[in-house]
Amino acid sequence: MPDNRSIGVFDSGIGGLTVVREIFRQAPDESVYYLGDTARYPYGGRSDDTIAIFGKQDARFLLEHDIKMLIVACNTVSSVALDAIKVIAKDIPVVGVVMPGCRAAVARSATRKVGIIGTRATIRAQSYTKGILAIDPDVAVYGRECPLFVPLVEEGLTDGEIPRLIAQHYLYELKDNGIDSLILGCTHYPFLFDVIQETMGSAIELIDSAVWTATEAAKLLKAMDALASPGRKGAEESKFFVTDLTQSFANNAARFLGQELSSLEAVGMERLTKY
Amino acid sequence: MPDNRSIGVFDSGIGGLTVVREIFRQAPDESVYYLGDTARYPYGGRSDDTIAIFGKQDARFLLEHDIKMLIVACNTVSSVALDAIKVIAKDIPVVGVVMPGCRAAVARSATRKVGIIGTRATIRAQSYTKGILAIDPDVAVYGRECPLFVPLVEEGLTDGEIPRLIAQHYLYELKDNGIDSLILGCTHYPFLFDVIQETMGSAIELIDSAVWTATEAAKLLKAMDALASPGRKGAEESKFFVTDLTQSFANNAARFLGQELSSLEAVGMERLTKY
Repeated sequence: MPDNRSIGVFDSGIGGLTVVREIFRQAPDESVYYLGDTARYPYGGRSDDTIAIFGKQDARFLLEHDIKMLIVACNTVSSVALDAIKVIAKDIPVVGVVMPGCRAAVARSATRKVGIIGTRATIRAQSYTKGILAIDPDVAVYGRECPLFVPLVEEGLTDGEIPRLIAQHYLYELKDNGIDSLILGCTHYPFLFDVIQETMGSAIELIDSAVWTATEAAKLLKAMDALASPGRKGAEESKFFVTDLTQSFANNAARFLGQELSSLEAVGMERLTKY
Repeated sequence: MPDNRSIGVFDSGIGGLTVVREIFRQAPDESVYYLGDTARYPYGGRSDDTIAIFGKQDARFLLEHDIKMLIVACNTVSSVALDAIKVIAKDIPVVGVVMPGCRAAVARSATRKVGIIGTRATIRAQSYTKGILAIDPDVAVYGRECPLFVPLVEEGLTDGEIPRLIAQHYLYELKDNGIDSLILGCTHYPFLFDVIQETMGSAIELIDSAVWTATEAAKLLKAMDALASPGRKGAEESKFFVTDLTQSFANNAARFLGQELSSLEAVGMERLTKY
């Protein structure tokens, strides 16, 4: 029986819209309920305790709505607090962005050497390393934090000399490890795809977590017999919420989503901090 | 009669420690009560409404302690919400960082053309423009937002090719306006002093708001007959609070303050959001 409830998706900010874009592309019948915590973004440099508090507040906001699945579209929260969020989600299935990226990388690496780039908290948590080793303990994983990539994307500085120099600064050591796959462990990084590919060289495949997360979410819904009605216009039925609505967000959101947002509403911070 | 109560100082994060450093240098008898809202930092890209909510919460936390003065050591909050904070501070004098910088620039500019760089919210509020025109309506003011400067300083990337390119990207237009003074309208920017000076050329004087804010605060305390006891060791009596305590903060704090912190304590977010 079709299940037309929405998929809840949250991120610290705008990056999770790249996951939503993939859902709309791969499963256009599905609608989403999106929350971006733009008043407290970015999470990637904060402590694990604070990331867990913020992530659980975001999750509870979405769980109060009638959703059929919760996607944690934030690599930082997925790395630090996914288990805690599964506890509060109870029967609602929770999908993070880390394991789909791990599975894709292990399946595609011939050299059995995989690179992972992400925020400071994501790399510190070693979530991708643990995830990959759980699938195949013979794969070597090399991580690197790239804290300036997120502000670069937010500023729209995604080509030219400045991002190229910063990419070289972060990535030159990773190139020498014999990796053949590099996981983009942050939903902002696909916007630097060309610069990262150029820096790493064409022999190294870049793996976009957003794509594989949408693929796994759709498979899971099918397995649970919880797909939406065929022919439904999911994007039009979707709703988008942010904790702080700025002009900069409005300018960037359509770029991240790949289309105009069907609706956009500001949520007062008191709605989140009451949890 | 000496007044040994502390001066309350807050910033969105760590930058306000440069103001504290100047207080310790110019008025070593004075102690401070410092709050850095590192769990929600940075403020500079957020909306005016959110900046005002966060700024008032920070102010209320400090006003609950027994302080004799409140310094808003955050250019963004000083630009957007200083009047609202004065209302809740009642009899406690409130000093922002904007007007001291304006007064210094007007006093020092011979060409009567002044530049100002800051966060997106600071430039959007035109607080420095309004402040300078209120002092002297014949001064021309040229502003430029520099959103990547804060993450650069946070990452410790303050010299070399990357900050130089980013400085050129932001500042090349400002150079051609005939300004002879440039206000560093963000407490992080003094850490890019050399790069900015090199980019602007030696004929342009850089004006550090932190220095002049400390000077004005000390003058005001003297005028109010509220200076601390001579010979007191203010730095040792000071207390520092943050909403999120990370290794990165601990690493940077002493660099910003110019000495080790006498104490450092994490404040739970619920202490702030209760207001």
